[in-house]
Amino acid sequence: MTRPETSPSVRLQLGVCDYPEHVPEDRWSAYAQQQRQLGLTYVRIAEFAWGRMEPRSGEYDWAWLDRAVEAYHAAGMRVVLCTPTATPPAWLVRFHPEILPYDAQGRVREFGSRRHYDFASPVYREHSRRITRVMAERYGQHPAVAGWQTDNEFGCHATSRSFGGASAAVFPGWLQQKYGTLEALNEAWGNVFWSMEYTGWDEIRPPHLTVTEPNPSHVLDYARFSSEMIRQFQAEQVAILRELSPGRFITHNFMIFESGFDHYEVARGLDFVTWDNYPTGMLEYFAPPGIREDVKTRYARTGHPDLIAFNHDLYRNLLEGRGALGREGADSPNGFWVMEQQCGQVNWAPYNPLPADGAVQLWTAQAWAHGADVVSYFRWRAATMAQEVMHSGLLRHDETPDRGFAEVQALDLGSFPVGNVPARVALVHDYESLWAYDAQPHNAAATYWQQTVTYYSALRSLGVDVDVISASADLTGYVLVVAPAITLVTAEMASRWTAAAQGGAFLVCGPRTAFRTPGGATWTDGQFGPLSTLVGARLLQYDSLRPGVTQDISGGHTAHTWAESYRLQGAQATHTYQGGPLTGQAAVIRHGNVTVIGASSESLIQDVLRGALQEAQVVTADLPEGVRLSRRAGHTLVQNWTAEPVPWQGRVLPPTSFEVMHDQ
Amino acid sequence: MTRPETSPSVRLQLGVCDYPEHVPEDRWSAYAQQQRQLGLTYVRIAEFAWGRMEPRSGEYDWAWLDRAVEAYHAAGMRVVLCTPTATPPAWLVRFHPEILPYDAQGRVREFGSRRHYDFASPVYREHSRRITRVMAERYGQHPAVAGWQTDNEFGCHATSRSFGGASAAVFPGWLQQKYGTLEALNEAWGNVFWSMEYTGWDEIRPPHLTVTEPNPSHVLDYARFSSEMIRQFQAEQVAILRELSPGRFITHNFMIFESGFDHYEVARGLDFVTWDNYPTGMLEYFAPPGIREDVKTRYARTGHPDLIAFNHDLYRNLLEGRGALGREGADSPNGFWVMEQQCGQVNWAPYNPLPADGAVQLWTAQAWAHGADVVSYFRWRAATMAQEVMHSGLLRHDETPDRGFAEVQALDLGSFPVGNVPARVALVHDYESLWAYDAQPHNAAATYWQQTVTYYSALRSLGVDVDVISASADLTGYVLVVAPAITLVTAEMASRWTAAAQGGAFLVCGPRTAFRTPGGATWTDGQFGPLSTLVGARLLQYDSLRPGVTQDISGGHTAHTWAESYRLQGAQATHTYQGGPLTGQAAVIRHGNVTVIGASSESLIQDVLRGALQEAQVVTADLPEGVRLSRRAGHTLVQNWTAEPVPWQGRVLPPTSFEVMHDQ
Amino acid sequence: MTRPETSPSVRLQLGVCDYPEHVPEDRWSAYAQQQRQLGLTYVRIAEFAWGRMEPRSGEYDWAWLDRAVEAYHAAGMRVVLCTPTATPPAWLVRFHPEILPYDAQGRVREFGSRRHYDFASPVYREHSRRITRVMAERYGQHPAVAGWQTDNEFGCHATSRSFGGASAAVFPGWLQQKYGTLEALNEAWGNVFWSMEYTGWDEIRPPHLTVTEPNPSHVLDYARFSSEMIRQFQAEQVAILRELSPGRFITHNFMIFESGFDHYEVARGLDFVTWDNYPTGMLEYFAPPGIREDVKTRYARTGHPDLIAFNHDLYRNLLEGRGALGREGADSPNGFWVMEQQCGQVNWAPYNPLPADGAVQLWTAQAWAHGADVVSYFRWRAATMAQEVMHSGLLRHDETPDRGFAEVQALDLGSFPVGNVPARVALVHDYESLWAYDAQPHNAAATYWQQTVTYYSALRSLGVDVDVISASADLTGYVLVVAPAITLVTAEMASRWTAAAQGGAFLVCGPRTAFRTPGGATWTDGQFGPLSTLVGARLLQYDSLRPGVTQDISGGHTAHTWAESYRLQGAQATHTYQGGPLTGQAAVIRHGNVTVIGASSESLIQDVLRGALQEAQVVTADLPEGVRLSRRAGHTLVQNWTAEPVPWQGRVLPPTSFEVMHDQ
Repeated sequence: MTRPETSPSVRLQLGVCDYPEHVPEDRWSAYAQQQRQLGLTYVRIAEFAWGRMEPRSGEYDWAWLDRAVEAYHAAGMRVVLCTPTATPPAWLVRFHPEILPYDAQGRVREFGSRRHYDFASPVYREHSRRITRVMAERYGQHPAVAGWQTDNEFGCHATSRSFGGASAAVFPGWLQQKYGTLEALNEAWGNVFWSMEYTGWDEIRPPHLTVTEPNPSHVLDYARFSSEMIRQFQAEQVAILRELSPGRFITHNFMIFESGFDHYEVARGLDFVTWDNYPTGMLEYFAPPGIREDVKTRYARTGHPDLIAFNHDLYRNLLEGRGALGREGADSPNGFWVMEQQCGQVNWAPYNPLPADGAVQLWTAQAWAHGADVVSYFRWRAATMAQEVMHSGLLRHDETPDRGFAEVQALDLGSFPVGNVPARVALVHDYESLWAYDAQPHNAAATYWQQTVTYYSALRSLGVDVDVISASADLTGYVLVVAPAITLVTAEMASRWTAAAQGGAFLVCGPRTAFRTPGGATWTDGQFGPLSTLVGARLLQYDSLRPGVTQDISGGHTAHTWAESYRLQGAQATHTYQGGPLTGQAAVIRHGNVTVIGASSESLIQDVLRGALQEAQVVTADLPEGVRLSRRAGHTLVQNWTAEPVPWQGRVLPPTSFEVMHDQ
Repeated sequence: MTRPETSPSVRLQLGVCDYPEHVPEDRWSAYAQQQRQLGLTYVRIAEFAWGRMEPRSGEYDWAWLDRAVEAYHAAGMRVVLCTPTATPPAWLVRFHPEILPYDAQGRVREFGSRRHYDFASPVYREHSRRITRVMAERYGQHPAVAGWQTDNEFGCHATSRSFGGASAAVFPGWLQQKYGTLEALNEAWGNVFWSMEYTGWDEIRPPHLTVTEPNPSHVLDYARFSSEMIRQFQAEQVAILRELSPGRFITHNFMIFESGFDHYEVARGLDFVTWDNYPTGMLEYFAPPGIREDVKTRYARTGHPDLIAFNHDLYRNLLEGRGALGREGADSPNGFWVMEQQCGQVNWAPYNPLPADGAVQLWTAQAWAHGADVVSYFRWRAATMAQEVMHSGLLRHDETPDRGFAEVQALDLGSFPVGNVPARVALVHDYESLWAYDAQPHNAAATYWQQTVTYYSALRSLGVDVDVISASADLTGYVLVVAPAITLVTAEMASRWTAAAQGGAFLVCGPRTAFRTPGGATWTDGQFGPLSTLVGARLLQYDSLRPGVTQDISGGHTAHTWAESYRLQGAQATHTYQGGPLTGQAAVIRHGNVTVIGASSESLIQDVLRGALQEAQVVTADLPEGVRLSRRAGHTLVQNWTAEPVPWQGRVLPPTSFEVMHDQ
Repeated sequence: MTRPETSPSVRLQLGVCDYPEHVPEDRWSAYAQQQRQLGLTYVRIAEFAWGRMEPRSGEYDWAWLDRAVEAYHAAGMRVVLCTPTATPPAWLVRFHPEILPYDAQGRVREFGSRRHYDFASPVYREHSRRITRVMAERYGQHPAVAGWQTDNEFGCHATSRSFGGASAAVFPGWLQQKYGTLEALNEAWGNVFWSMEYTGWDEIRPPHLTVTEPNPSHVLDYARFSSEMIRQFQAEQVAILRELSPGRFITHNFMIFESGFDHYEVARGLDFVTWDNYPTGMLEYFAPPGIREDVKTRYARTGHPDLIAFNHDLYRNLLEGRGALGREGADSPNGFWVMEQQCGQVNWAPYNPLPADGAVQLWTAQAWAHGADVVSYFRWRAATMAQEVMHSGLLRHDETPDRGFAEVQALDLGSFPVGNVPARVALVHDYESLWAYDAQPHNAAATYWQQTVTYYSALRSLGVDVDVISASADLTGYVLVVAPAITLVTAEMASRWTAAAQGGAFLVCGPRTAFRTPGGATWTDGQFGPLSTLVGARLLQYDSLRPGVTQDISGGHTAHTWAESYRLQGAQATHTYQGGPLTGQAAVIRHGNVTVIGASSESLIQDVLRGALQEAQVVTADLPEGVRLSRRAGHTLVQNWTAEPVPWQGRVLPPTSFEVMHDQ
């Protein structure tokens, strides 16, 4: 059976990740034809194939890859080629051991798996440019090549930062560039605090193995430095690909909840963004710490809808209109791809269950509804060797179609038209705030992602579409802006938020908002620093609650984990604390269009957000547990993520199911 | 009181581990006489005494050991001498620091306790041979010397593998010997997977400190290499002892559930096998992860009968008839010794309770019933210095008899005749499968030992005697062969199993059977690879269940942890899954005499095994919790391992008790 | 408002820790005046200011410190100056990397926080003496300078011991000094045990990274060595300060439950002792392992009264009358200071709640009642930079008074007269026993502090004042001496305890008393070694109980964790075990005035102590949960540490409150 063709410009397209080098060559044509018959358009290849492209230093072997690309071409597949820099070969590592990264314990991270390189290494940078150039020279204008993926999953396996070697050597120069003088650096970091002032640039090391915690400003700048190394590393590849592969798109496949670099900075210069969506592994392994075990059990076979959707909404907006120029076959504003979509069990979480019946279709539909123009499954055939033999593919080890194959085959792609996601609510996300927040959580249960996802989930439970946007994004057009954990606020951000509020947008902030200066210190005039006028209040107290210690709030709410109170300087308290050391103090404050929620309390957050949405004239719906709505291109995707039928609006949603409804 | 002598050839004999170097010389004769009076035959000495034999490089001091051996001799004790290589002295370590091993974190493991050496070190090998030779020259023909123990507890404290130093240096050469060419190695390991192909032998390191998990084939070969280093190390000592100590036996004291080397290979060349039996510490510290806390609490003072018995049944069959030539005073086929038998509290587990009243006798009786010809208690007098001062002995620190002494004294050795263990059921155990299984468990609760012990325990709960045998063992004579976790199956194994089934034996396999090739990959035609014809089925799905997620099975069973289903190609389903993604699929399949159980479910496993036993005409008994039967030499040992009286077959078994019954 | 002056010789005085180098100079005078107006007498400064005193090697900058000291002087504050050696500057560390310490994993502990030095480093010792000398030369006779604090919090962040570098180099020489010959060392350590005998001093390393646990005698001597390095390090500073700063006191601020050195030895030569009291962080982070989660939750906002009081009673008696000569403004026997008193939330525990309303006053009153002459709050203004931005001060970041400020302001200092704490009960505490106990706990739930605090808490729950004293302290005057965990007993101690008992004092000992020799071995004639005659018994059995396994005791008690029994040789059993392997054996024994409690059982311990107190004619009171009594200078402080009102003696104690009652 061959799918009927639909114009790629009007509906979701599919793809797959394939590894011709893993199977005998006699399979190549057959696989490519099977892929095409399944209705797949794109095939991503070669991201780990450096060793086959250049078996020995300077000895290239392109013949096999030529034939592989031709096989896809002949079958009508569009090829996404990857720079193979995620896996430098053994000969390169042993000749240049200085390219290896160091872990936070100061140990060299060894060859023998993947991502064993330091982004800051000038030696590795040179080889990265070289292999990119020779690859682009050979395939840059091949008619089958639709575009490029740089490297693979930056940051995976905690590889964003190296604590030694090249990174340690380059860091002082980066600081010198940034601060000019040591006096400026010492002042910015507050190094006077524990006599930590430097008198020479080469005295400065990565912030690790210190006797007790390092200076958070030191940590923050190391995060910025490491992020910049990744940005530079990719930019060098992008420049070469632009030169040698005109008309082809360039993208990167980003990770689930990856914290190690500033994705906004690194994405700049790409045509569009992709990410790798593994819903069950995400819930087991990458979920923020507040996700309880019973939730993990309940959603074990589907993943949690809000965790997945958060990543979709984040990556859809990562380029914020700055990319999309070179994209092929897509006309959605901010459209993105899922480059690797789970289509069976994974192998890397503590527990790796089979997806529920229908989950692969549900994931695909959700990706579409949140703005994906292409969903590309990982992988074609399950690997029969090495680290991932227990990871599924569309085909089993024995080449028979696995469960996911049938679900993909049964998809009605025509029901997934591309187009705009009509979000009128923005949730502000910022990597610098993330780094500052998690450097000093003050409470073992508090993390940036946990706080951010809690607000996101509250919005989604109210049936609202959300754009996750950067702290420097344009706020025009949003009627509600939610800033759950933006602890690091600049004067520029303050004036932009103020303008938005003055322009009529509602603003809801979480605790610790504007607690930090851009340098990672606190404001000498205290929280909310440059936001104080807008908020009409100042910090009074913050309280860090251990499990079992809670704090009551008016309206029947209860805070756990965190409770902040405020001195009112224009704002009014809408909720106050009851009992305990905060009794009578303001828990939620309102100043014009601006609300600050000081406490961790799911019900309070949902109540405040519901109120704000209603004031902003956004229609809300109190959805049942596990039911979600997502809108795109004039359609609404109704989803049931639970394993039970759920009554909703006069009908029953089957378990693990979706329905595409045309909006009236 | 002196025990009456019974011929050592007809009943269990006892021994003790003693350390003359730990006490003043004036105690030696008295202790030896006391030992003899207690009815002990053997005394094991000197396994940690290198520093006293050779206080400085090349300066030997034999005088003290001469006098100690004479003291035992005069009292009529038979001496088991040990090569002292488990504790290289400080002068050797400091002069040759290259003999020290490295841990998996890449750190040198330091002098200051024991087992601080790398089996692969050529320097240490030379000193091992030297000290063995001079010892054997002096004592090899001493009339008091009954035999030799090599070294002590290979692998204890995770010392089977060293990740650096000598092992790292020798590994590439071993690989070259095995594979011949790098092409062959790269192909065998599937190094193409992540560009891990090697272009020089010296590029290959131990599989550690990689960025994410190393290649399981790399891990598997490192385990094989490390095991071979241990085999060679011991073989060198054995050759010298054979030369210089004719007529004496050579053995080694193996560990509880030690996984670090192939015990079948290492045991080859020994006369018989011994192991060190610490039931309470075993339950606290060495128990497979599935043993629940309430089980640990219930059996805290006795250990769990099946964990202990498994080790007995494993070590009884370790040599599979290939040893036993040089053994003194024993005529059991496959008879073994317990070289160190706990006789009071130990000191090395997280909690170290007193044994229950009667436990020392119960352990001794159980050892006998499972085939031990000698049980040797650890140790004579509790050490008054250093690491083990809180470990008990038969005597207290103050030389008064401790509780175990009285229990040993009260034993009726005449009731323990030596002879055959009449097992007709074999359980297949294989170290290569263990390594492959645990390298990629796919489920945090699944381990090789856990799966293996679950099947063993089911058999024991049905009152059946079991031979634990190797994957290369002769299957002749067994009416039922159980293979719980043999995930790595060769063509040779497949043909042997097929022959056994054709010969009428029943075969029951667990999940993941034959999932792996001998190289650690998967079969390109999928599970069951070379067993497919025999099994009459192929893998359909496998499902890895987190705690709280279960899978129902027909017949009222419930799977946890793991559930596999099959495509039937001749086989028939005897049980099917109900509900969830596996609904309606085969959970247990039967093809002729061959059954495969795909799910982790204690009740299902017991049901299937009960059925297979009945078909094979093995009498079964559904034993009450904690009651066990063991048969030897025409007798049955009935055991109650619980702290309560248990009604059984018309009588009441007292707590922590046994009864020897003559079989009709 | 300015407080009325009260003579410093008759009532509690207050102080504060301040950091002029952290704020603009224009604040200095204003802060000093505010401090004075708040009623504060002392200000401690400069313990982390080395980098500002000596910005580059040999370039001193005293101008800023001159002006800061003058600002305090002008406002009438008394200055406590610190040697700044807790934070060697970057230039020193990079020029002399050999001063850095090593952690137990063998890694260099890096510059970038604090305490990054090895006490044994001769290079660092030289710089420590130099900076002390130049500081003392400049400020030693300044009229504002009341005294000196050496360094800061010895041992904090596990810095008592360095496992490499300078300590590793110096250790062998220290051993040679102690033992003279290697034969003596080998004998003392029992190195024959595992062939661990040394043949050269330089073969000996710190006891770490051994394959399994190191020799406990090795561990014990390394603890002694490391402690002696700290003693020497401080003694060098003290000698210089004595020379150059006549008439000024010298003290050190010790830590909560710090175990890394012998505080009695290190304190010798100081004028008086201070410690740093952080009640909420103490409960979360430093509490012994037996403190349950529900207790941590219940006392989350106050800390636990007994944990705090134990430290007060320990430090009050640390000098045992040998100090106090140079103290200014204090006339209490053994009076001490709280140098850093928590006055808001801290930042370093897993959870850092706000203190309850009234907690700062309660902590201050409790400190007074347990013998503090000065309570000095940490810190004046919350830091706006670096590691401790989330730690509170009396002022907030924005310089407004925080909650603690108001509580301090409202204190009635006149109600806190200085004078004697009338303890007639002594609890014996010994660092060598602590090291020996914790080196081999034999039970994962048993620690020295846990056992010691359990007995202390039982005494406090009976309303009794306690002196925590050293094992070498004079016992004269005590009617009851309690030794919960003195496992290492010398002949000298035995004769002193015997004399006390003969003199009429009652003695109550816990399990494992006198189990160890001073060398860390056991007595060859067994427990109780030199105490055997006094105790009238010998060890029979000890039993280490896992959670869930308990042991009944007559009188309705139940043991957990540990149960010892005894052979009676003059003593009588007052309680016996019931059931299990100890049934019928003595659990508590009494011999004249001496009682030994063999079991871990809170109710049993309380019963036995109540009986002993009554026999010793000490009035007891069975206090309600959370209510405590403390007596000083003819007054009784009644405290309610709970969050609820508690009825007591006909009245109701408000939550988190105290009352000072004049004794009739």
